[in-house]
Amino acid sequence: MSDLHLLSPKGFRAGAVKAGIKASGNLDVAILTCDASATAAAMFTTNKVFAAPVKIGRGHIAKGSLRGIVVNAGNANACTGKQGEKDAMAMCRIAAAQLKCAPREILPSSTGIIGHVLPMDKIEMGIKGAAQDLGDTVEHATRFNDAIMTTDTRRKLAAETVKVGKHTVTIAGVCKGAGMIGPKLGPPQATMLAYLTTDAQISAPSLRKLFQPAVTRSFNAVTIDDHQSTNDTAVILASGASNAKINTTVDAKKFLDALTHVCQFLAYQIAADGEGATKVVRIEVVNAKNDKDAATIARAIANSPLVKCAMNGNDPNWGRIVSAAGMTGAAFVPEKSTLALQGTTVYRKGRPVAFDAMEVSKSLATNEVVARLDCGIGKSSATVWTCDLSKDYVTINADYHT
Amino acid sequence: MSDLHLLSPKGFRAGAVKAGIKASGNLDVAILTCDASATAAAMFTTNKVFAAPVKIGRGHIAKGSLRGIVVNAGNANACTGKQGEKDAMAMCRIAAAQLKCAPREILPSSTGIIGHVLPMDKIEMGIKGAAQDLGDTVEHATRFNDAIMTTDTRRKLAAETVKVGKHTVTIAGVCKGAGMIGPKLGPPQATMLAYLTTDAQISAPSLRKLFQPAVTRSFNAVTIDDHQSTNDTAVILASGASNAKINTTVDAKKFLDALTHVCQFLAYQIAADGEGATKVVRIEVVNAKNDKDAATIARAIANSPLVKCAMNGNDPNWGRIVSAAGMTGAAFVPEKSTLALQGTTVYRKGRPVAFDAMEVSKSLATNEVVARLDCGIGKSSATVWTCDLSKDYVTINADYHT
Repeated sequence: MSDLHLLSPKGFRAGAVKAGIKASGNLDVAILTCDASATAAAMFTTNKVFAAPVKIGRGHIAKGSLRGIVVNAGNANACTGKQGEKDAMAMCRIAAAQLKCAPREILPSSTGIIGHVLPMDKIEMGIKGAAQDLGDTVEHATRFNDAIMTTDTRRKLAAETVKVGKHTVTIAGVCKGAGMIGPKLGPPQATMLAYLTTDAQISAPSLRKLFQPAVTRSFNAVTIDDHQSTNDTAVILASGASNAKINTTVDAKKFLDALTHVCQFLAYQIAADGEGATKVVRIEVVNAKNDKDAATIARAIANSPLVKCAMNGNDPNWGRIVSAAGMTGAAFVPEKSTLALQGTTVYRKGRPVAFDAMEVSKSLATNEVVARLDCGIGKSSATVWTCDLSKDYVTINADYHT
Repeated sequence: MSDLHLLSPKGFRAGAVKAGIKASGNLDVAILTCDASATAAAMFTTNKVFAAPVKIGRGHIAKGSLRGIVVNAGNANACTGKQGEKDAMAMCRIAAAQLKCAPREILPSSTGIIGHVLPMDKIEMGIKGAAQDLGDTVEHATRFNDAIMTTDTRRKLAAETVKVGKHTVTIAGVCKGAGMIGPKLGPPQATMLAYLTTDAQISAPSLRKLFQPAVTRSFNAVTIDDHQSTNDTAVILASGASNAKINTTVDAKKFLDALTHVCQFLAYQIAADGEGATKVVRIEVVNAKNDKDAATIARAIANSPLVKCAMNGNDPNWGRIVSAAGMTGAAFVPEKSTLALQGTTVYRKGRPVAFDAMEVSKSLATNEVVARLDCGIGKSSATVWTCDLSKDYVTINADYHT
């Protein structure tokens, strides 16, 4: 990752201020902008209860170009009715006036508590302040990153470069999210928020086409509590400022690979910072009947509170994993299946395998655990990232609102 | 419930012993038997990873008649391959020899740890001992009830009488289950175990036809961790000893209502004794588009760790409930929906309703909480029982195996 950051791709600036939305008094209103019009693609929550900024954002992304993103944390502007829509639209209008563009060139984002109307006086002051703060340094990138955090305990960022012809394309991203994380982003559809920048030259349809598989294999493959938020949003802006045109199949593949890596590293960081998490648990399902079954089985295992508690206790309780695999509608044949925990086979073809429980338990006492389930009935695979379920998760979530 | 118990319906006896299967040394092998051949119906787990006793039980229930049930706790005989099947069959053979019937007239059940072969010497001694212990007193019913418990902290029993003509029919049941509870029982398919007795005279096809809707509206409507077990089993035996024939539509309806009440009260007790639970949470979804959508929405809310933690904290965080309702494939229109917590409306038609958060929080600090969601788009309803998610749940499940 070296010293790359969200504003390393050429053509982008960001700014953030403390507007008094977060009770903590930390940075909470921010702008990310592209100096010229950027091609853009976005995916939003597929929850039928979606926040006002998601509704407005779906409209604004339709043309495939944006000048910027305006975001606040501390209030999700969700379940706020018509007033919420007016407020999300007002955020765009205020930001557009600062950036000298049309309101529909701005994508709004909000994250925080559900069911409270935005304090628009503070929001307006915040957006104007963030516009004054715009810059392209690592400090600006960091301030933007800080402003989008809610229950996150650390920043999440990733970046990668890829050679396209004689040009170097940079892809960078930041994201937030620690709870209410079970995104299932759909086309023009997290409170996972992910913002990606790149200086590639790429058409909006091509960007959209590449962003979807990258999101499917990253943000849509991370789950903390399987609770799909009203505000989940992932958006990428391409400035074109590198002069590297993505228009051959080979270059598109290179770009997709780099984009997928960046998204996956961001998703991994969400799992690692899951509320109360002490470790990342990677569920690898291989040789499933088809892609859908592979993903369904991986997700069922990743979402089982029994599996997650066992991981918290460094407990090689493989019966919970195998039984979770069998309880979905997906094809699963115990007699053909094999399960390994941290590389140790514990179950093979419907039967237990003798193993040193103390040794395997020791191997689970680390910050990244891999459970690999070979279904033995096909060629499809899926990886889902989750975290363990700790007492701290309960503490954090039993007292969030009041 | 008065003083009715599992053996109140005429024609049944039970026995139980300490066979050394449970580490605690408590009662762990038991027999429930009908003096004459009983008509019988059963439903088992739909998990593709199902235990050996489930496989054998499916075969034995096919004819619709049974003489008895043999059960052990402390070892689930699941993921034990061919040896497991032999052992489950041996349990039937040993019990049948004691009860002077054919092995296929016995339904075997097991609950406990997954992936360990049964200690058949202890099991054999246990079954013979349980057969010596057979009797029809309340003490025998209680001993049977104790023998099937694992992480349960209390007995779960229910019973009801219903007049059929000039005869009185008694329906009684016991069940166990506190964790790995998310049963989805299917026809000839919990480690929920439920055993019901009745002295009604009813044909096997009629009993099967009435048992399914009763199970759907009770055991299939309780979830603690949404983890469907390998061993879930619900079975009912009808001795006929009351001489009350169930063969009119009116009588069948009366019997079904009473049976449903008994099953629902048992299911309620499972939620109340959920691992670490401090309260029962009843999710009522009304006016949904159709029955399937109503059940899907109720289950999504009941399974959300965020909702369950909020309930643990007496936190009226209704945004978690509404967002859970929207994240399933079921039809849901925020603008038509209304949510009440303990009778206080907190959300109406897509918008928050002002309420006294302290008062509602106080109303949540009790042992039974009702969240009622009116979807406003149809006439279907569903009720799901769950419990809160506490730190004790994590403690119990992080250290169960090792």
